[in-house]
Amino acid sequence: MREFILKANKAITSGDINLKDLPGSCGRLDLVCRCISSAFFLSHDIRRDTVFYSVHYGRPNPPVALKFVGSQLKRVSPDERSIAIFIKKALSREHGPQWRESTPGIYHAKKDFREIVLEKVREGRNVYLLHLKGRPIEEVINEETYPEMRERGFVFILGDHIGLSEEDERFLRDLGVERISLSPLELHANQCIDIVHNVLDKLEYRRG
Amino acid sequence: MREFILKANKAITSGDINLKDLPGSCGRLDLVCRCISSAFFLSHDIRRDTVFYSVHYGRPNPPVALKFVGSQLKRVSPDERSIAIFIKKALSREHGPQWRESTPGIYHAKKDFREIVLEKVREGRNVYLLHLKGRPIEEVINEETYPEMRERGFVFILGDHIGLSEEDERFLRDLGVERISLSPLELHANQCIDIVHNVLDKLEYRRG
Repeated sequence: MREFILKANKAITSGDINLKDLPGSCGRLDLVCRCISSAFFLSHDIRRDTVFYSVHYGRPNPPVALKFVGSQLKRVSPDERSIAIFIKKALSREHGPQWRESTPGIYHAKKDFREIVLEKVREGRNVYLLHLKGRPIEEVINEETYPEMRERGFVFILGDHIGLSEEDERFLRDLGVERISLSPLELHANQCIDIVHNVLDKLEYRRG
Repeated sequence: MREFILKANKAITSGDINLKDLPGSCGRLDLVCRCISSAFFLSHDIRRDTVFYSVHYGRPNPPVALKFVGSQLKRVSPDERSIAIFIKKALSREHGPQWRESTPGIYHAKKDFREIVLEKVREGRNVYLLHLKGRPIEEVINEETYPEMRERGFVFILGDHIGLSEEDERFLRDLGVERISLSPLELHANQCIDIVHNVLDKLEYRRG
């Protein structure tokens, strides 16, 4: 299983979404949509082994968490506008402390970033923070380490254009979450997802 | 220099673009927009060393070629809708055999896919076709080969969801264009661009 958690610092937390202005008034919701496109869509297929969390901290009612489950998704297309319409539906609902399904495979809850991370650490997943200054991913996840790691599953934590706060980084450090790096350049979160999938795909499907 | 050439088999060839329906009536123009986002946008920066060509073969007047020059781009954002608005402007113009500028860094012409490829081969670039069945990119572009290759520049040819025709593949083979592979899975063109940039970034910026 591959899981991604995006902390979306400015992303809107109501269904009041203007589809003509995802970057501005919706708080870079375009980036969230591209992340979902990268997380799930192959050419002519969907990645069923992937789960994506987007935790929104924008106006008017932060935080709100969304969860997308690849094995259950239906009728979603890879373009930003189509994904934003599904997000609008989920954000328009009333959020409780537990996940509720909005449309097939898309869930919403009043959960914060740390609660979701903590759950993954407790489940025993391999949890990593993608960070410019981390260890190169190839040093951590490679032909030698992969077979054993894949049994526990992978979780990758992503920041948006603002990034994580110092408190968040300390919280992750205290949990023992290692920082890994994909590139010598600072990339967008969706580009990071494409690269992570590629590293894992080569280990998963070119083996033996 | 890094250049990408996308053959967009169904992409619209007039300015009659419905921004609410990039995937459908515009012939997967959403994919073209995501390719441009991946080709040029870093977090808080633009890739000045990149050029992207999109050659459209959709209705009503194929082919029309667009050229995006990273070092000249202005006011473009990474979201699909914003990029589509710039494409709409370029496609609304009258196209001649030579490149004409529509907005800063965005050019349009009545050129076909093969003419653009041929120009790159004649310029002496390292031209590759990204293909599921090609040689793994790491075997072709690596620490040993990169320093010499980078002087000549790289060109990567991409197919869309339909792919290249047999005639196109034969044309490229006759020109000596090698097929290289990024992944054991079939990816979207924009995902391929993210992975190619990552391979080259690690060779370019982690050297020495």
